[in-house]
Amino acid sequence: MKFTCHKNELVQAIQLVSKAIANKPQTPVLSGIYLEAGDNQLELHATDNEIGIISTIPADVEEQGKIVLSGRYMQEVIRRLPGDTVTISQEIGENVSKIQSAASNFTFLSMPANDFPTVKRLQEGVHFKIQDNILRDIIKKTVFACSTDESRPIFTGCQMEINGETLKMAATNTHRLSVKKEVVANLSGDLHIIIPAKLLNELLRALNSDMPIEVDVCCSSNQASFQFENVVFMSRLIEGQFPNYESVIPKSFATTVTLDTEDFLDAVDRVSLISRSADYNIIRLEFGSNQVHISSNSPDVGNANEIVAATIEGPNVNIAFNAKYVTDVLKNLNSKNFRFLLNESLQAAAVREEDNPTFVYIVTPVRTQN
Amino acid sequence: MKFTCHKNELVQAIQLVSKAIANKPQTPVLSGIYLEAGDNQLELHATDNEIGIISTIPADVEEQGKIVLSGRYMQEVIRRLPGDTVTISQEIGENVSKIQSAASNFTFLSMPANDFPTVKRLQEGVHFKIQDNILRDIIKKTVFACSTDESRPIFTGCQMEINGETLKMAATNTHRLSVKKEVVANLSGDLHIIIPAKLLNELLRALNSDMPIEVDVCCSSNQASFQFENVVFMSRLIEGQFPNYESVIPKSFATTVTLDTEDFLDAVDRVSLISRSADYNIIRLEFGSNQVHISSNSPDVGNANEIVAATIEGPNVNIAFNAKYVTDVLKNLNSKNFRFLLNESLQAAAVREEDNPTFVYIVTPVRTQN
Repeated sequence: MKFTCHKNELVQAIQLVSKAIANKPQTPVLSGIYLEAGDNQLELHATDNEIGIISTIPADVEEQGKIVLSGRYMQEVIRRLPGDTVTISQEIGENVSKIQSAASNFTFLSMPANDFPTVKRLQEGVHFKIQDNILRDIIKKTVFACSTDESRPIFTGCQMEINGETLKMAATNTHRLSVKKEVVANLSGDLHIIIPAKLLNELLRALNSDMPIEVDVCCSSNQASFQFENVVFMSRLIEGQFPNYESVIPKSFATTVTLDTEDFLDAVDRVSLISRSADYNIIRLEFGSNQVHISSNSPDVGNANEIVAATIEGPNVNIAFNAKYVTDVLKNLNSKNFRFLLNESLQAAAVREEDNPTFVYIVTPVRTQN
Repeated sequence: MKFTCHKNELVQAIQLVSKAIANKPQTPVLSGIYLEAGDNQLELHATDNEIGIISTIPADVEEQGKIVLSGRYMQEVIRRLPGDTVTISQEIGENVSKIQSAASNFTFLSMPANDFPTVKRLQEGVHFKIQDNILRDIIKKTVFACSTDESRPIFTGCQMEINGETLKMAATNTHRLSVKKEVVANLSGDLHIIIPAKLLNELLRALNSDMPIEVDVCCSSNQASFQFENVVFMSRLIEGQFPNYESVIPKSFATTVTLDTEDFLDAVDRVSLISRSADYNIIRLEFGSNQVHISSNSPDVGNANEIVAATIEGPNVNIAFNAKYVTDVLKNLNSKNFRFLLNESLQAAAVREEDNPTFVYIVTPVRTQN
């Protein structure tokens, strides 16, 4: 095998597919990146057997072939190479690859390419196309609400639902719930799948194009793929029954509070410097007199008090939350103002963007002593 | 006590003095920052009993006094405050301080100010003034060569020597030696002291003024202080006899190699990606035919080969080093080209800046198998 390609394109492709490599790979070959030099192109694969990423870049291929090289060393070495191009070659039957760029020559022990579980593109399933910015917003507004507790896999992913032209994404860790929906042109179907948060987080990072692009989504009964530009993200789906979350969204709220997103987030961030030093990271919110008083108390450190102006419709409410459950959602809102929707102190509250009915976040309050 | 000051000035002063706080303070009060509100100014002190830093900023002092607040919480809270100014107050006899800025109000448990070992300015000793850029260069070119092995304290500091008008700094970890000297106007005296690397590293970071400033240096038999602008750095000295390093500097070298500093450093950096995966981080240098061939071999990973153009006067030499001992010095050189001065494979080599006799670095080679 022998090919030459642009160093920067190779570096970017390596960085992208490396996201699929596990911190502790199950087998040695999974610590590697599979390189396949084909017809004027190089395909890179990496996988942890749960998610897989393929990136394809142009290459001047002198001899077709496939090799597997250590992901870690490739990333470190190739980005430091002095030339604009890189030539990688390996003789048939050898287990050593040569990497050459300007006056730099490296050899690396390679791994057997036939042992690598290459990432297979999905051939059949429900297909649809979606604009990158819409998909990004749907993921961003939900994936943060997932659980990281692997003992309950259902909650470590987002449920994606297609119902006619409506695409809906939902995530919950049982203490909070985030739901975002969008109408997607030409979408049709009926599908409920649970996509691992890990895949969605990597997809979110990769969906950073300055220009509008279309993402090709394909879902089968046990896999989903997202394809755009020269990249394919593949993932196994999480099996099981996602909870019927609609029932936990309150039908109505007695109090509606409108707040400046940034001012409120900054104030909660400061108060949480105190709250996070105590158990449960609790902040209290007292809504009344057109302001919200945010406070926290830690016996070992001190206390914090902040006042933020608010427009309040309905009865005054005092309520307490885990500060992280408030800041997490606020960081992902797009609107200058947002709405806090409340009933009583121990009843679930909602966060919504102003004038945007497509998103809702439900958060369970904390019971405090006074 | 009650004072008001500019938030940004307070944040900078806190950041600066915090460098003296140990990661694991010996006593709780040493995790704090001592604040003394005096005549239109606020003095901040922090210390780990080895080094101490004082910073003074203007303040509108309503009531003089002194308190000690947690360094960690002050740093986190004050930089996030919403206003341009901060007011800090504490009632006499209380152990709670109030911090107020715009609509933010924090209270913090404070520590007893009388328990704090305030940093004392040096009153007597050898005094001299030195330009910040000269002092910075002297420290930068030597302190990296110190040892971090606390079991041999002598090598964890730099020896500063004053001999007439000459100021000299030397550091060694026994495998390498770095010596830098400068003639300083109006300097006179005879002094040999060993200053902890920790203090010099913090001083290096703080000496970042865009404008030329003078640093006031004062040395007693067991302490040294560096004072500039509104800052004082104090340090205990390391006791003991620094080795007679002049004797290890070879009197002459058979081979002189001139290399481009950046090209050579980049090449060694790349080769060390391989060498550091093996024991001892060894790179080989083969000087000959107006080039240097840099190589390394790791049985588990592969090998690296780089060629860099060189001007060689004298016999060809093959020699091997710990890669870090080469890159450390090259990162601290100012000149476009540098000189490698060599005798035989197992004899100490020197690194010098081109056309600059005030600096020399001596490095012991490694014995390799072939």
